Amino acid sequence: MAKVLITGGAGFIGSHLADLLIAKGDEILVVDNLLLGREENIQHLFGHERFQFQKMDLLEFDQVKALFEEHQFTRVYHLAANSDIAKSNSERGLDLNLNLQTTRSVLEGMLACDCRELVFASTSAIYGELSSELHEDIGPLFPVSFYGASKLAAEAYISVYVNSYQIKAWITRFPNVVGERTTHGVIHDFIRKLRNNPNELEVLGDGNQFKPYLYVRELVAAIYWFTENSNEALNYVNIGVDSRTRVREIAAMVIEEMEVPAEIRYTGGNIGWVGDVAQFQYKLDKIHRMGWKADLTSNDAVRTAIRRILGKED
Amino acid sequence: MAKVLITGGAGFIGSHLADLLIAKGDEILVVDNLLLGREENIQHLFGHERFQFQKMDLLEFDQVKALFEEHQFTRVYHLAANSDIAKSNSERGLDLNLNLQTTRSVLEGMLACDCRELVFASTSAIYGELSSELHEDIGPLFPVSFYGASKLAAEAYISVYVNSYQIKAWITRFPNVVGERTTHGVIHDFIRKLRNNPNELEVLGDGNQFKPYLYVRELVAAIYWFTENSNEALNYVNIGVDSRTRVREIAAMVIEEMEVPAEIRYTGGNIGWVGDVAQFQYKLDKIHRMGWKADLTSNDAVRTAIRRILGKED
Repeated sequence: MAKVLITGGAGFIGSHLADLLIAKGDEILVVDNLLLGREENIQHLFGHERFQFQKMDLLEFDQVKALFEEHQFTRVYHLAANSDIAKSNSERGLDLNLNLQTTRSVLEGMLACDCRELVFASTSAIYGELSSELHEDIGPLFPVSFYGASKLAAEAYISVYVNSYQIKAWITRFPNVVGERTTHGVIHDFIRKLRNNPNELEVLGDGNQFKPYLYVRELVAAIYWFTENSNEALNYVNIGVDSRTRVREIAAMVIEEMEVPAEIRYTGGNIGWVGDVAQFQYKLDKIHRMGWKADLTSNDAVRTAIRRILGKED
Repeated sequence: MAKVLITGGAGFIGSHLADLLIAKGDEILVVDNLLLGREENIQHLFGHERFQFQKMDLLEFDQVKALFEEHQFTRVYHLAANSDIAKSNSERGLDLNLNLQTTRSVLEGMLACDCRELVFASTSAIYGELSSELHEDIGPLFPVSFYGASKLAAEAYISVYVNSYQIKAWITRFPNVVGERTTHGVIHDFIRKLRNNPNELEVLGDGNQFKPYLYVRELVAAIYWFTENSNEALNYVNIGVDSRTRVREIAAMVIEEMEVPAEIRYTGGNIGWVGDVAQFQYKLDKIHRMGWKADLTSNDAVRTAIRRILGKED
């Protein structure tokens, strides 16, 4: 039975991945620093015979090394990161530590115990503001957010370890991901704002930002599919959905589902914050050819996420 | 009169750039930690009224910030780096500090004094092992050396500052660069080995590595040309020469110029060290269209470098 490590496994996406891997029969250890992650996201797994949780700071390299030596993992799913893009502009060193340095720490831990398989959570933000459809081999790569820069840097370091130390890696580039257990992002923000004031909803930008939203359970299924169906030394793929949703549509859906009378007020400008990429669309041929395709459209994913966050469906 | 900062200005390439900028009339301050750089590379500039030197570690951010506040530079040429690709495999955190963190330090210093222009020394190593001709917009970017990964990461961070803080940047991607004042690299190694033993020359790999070599004074002229002829917010270009030289040819030329009887012994394998890219060629249309083209072929650059290092010509 494979024993795998999930870093950031108490977080939004990590906890859904933990659910999936438990269902698939893996023995898993979740580590999380609980900055964005929450124990309540994984509390239903506590007591399961194939589940362990440990609070840990991946920047404490001695602890990481000891962890790898103790558990002899066969694979690491490295999802630990600062995933709050808007936040990193006010703390410009944050993403370097939490996204790049944690990745280096995991890679060094893997070398210390001869663990050879790494699954990495990357992002559309590495592509910056390229105007054409984003296929995996496009360039140049000039990110516009610290989040994107630190994830691109992490990909680059993974590539070096794959080349130099016979590590096998699956780099999965996420789009916007929505669903229950989220801790930030557009739906989370809208719900929070409307709970504070049900009469007005402030929307950052002009509301015309137009991006693909993938439902979180579909994302983790796709990650798993990719690792099962791609077997190079360095595997990399966009995971997404081939439809998109405008921010103004999300606002309308949240208002409708919360049944509040809010008027929408736009702050203006074409981006929500510095580092926001207002519009993008993935080229998804690669993962579609492998046989995976999202069931939900972007609009359906957003609707499902809103309803599940509000507890209107399970 | 513009006051500019050259980081790594006592190094191989940095000291040649200092010569050029003094000749162009700039007032320059060179900082260098003197790890690879040497005072003897710039000693002929000491006493010049438009030249200053300061030993400094760019990782000491308080000192960097104070430097920028004191001098109010209009432009930074950021060349400080670990440029010894072979070395970084034994010390895997080295390039992250010396290449990425120094770049972040410089960018933060620029913000502190409202300095808006950055010229950055990047590298062909960001492209990894792509088999096609390397044009500037190619992808995917999967470096195979820590040097390449750290420089790609630095480019990504520069891109974010350009997007977020109205900094203008010129990213110049160097090929193999040769010439007097070099501290490592193939010619330097061959000469050192032959001085130790004039009867045998060990060559790493099979000698068929095939790359473009650019003479250092042509490189710094091209950097200057590019900054004068490209005026986007984020400017990036390959600088190189459209011919190549095999490592076995370099070995033969060094033996010939040193007038030693050495036999060549190849260690075998297609790369010289882990992280080496054995063959590449730049697409140079972009800088050629701007009107710059190298005068020396790759072979001539190698020959010139050998002769100047040996003191056979000035």
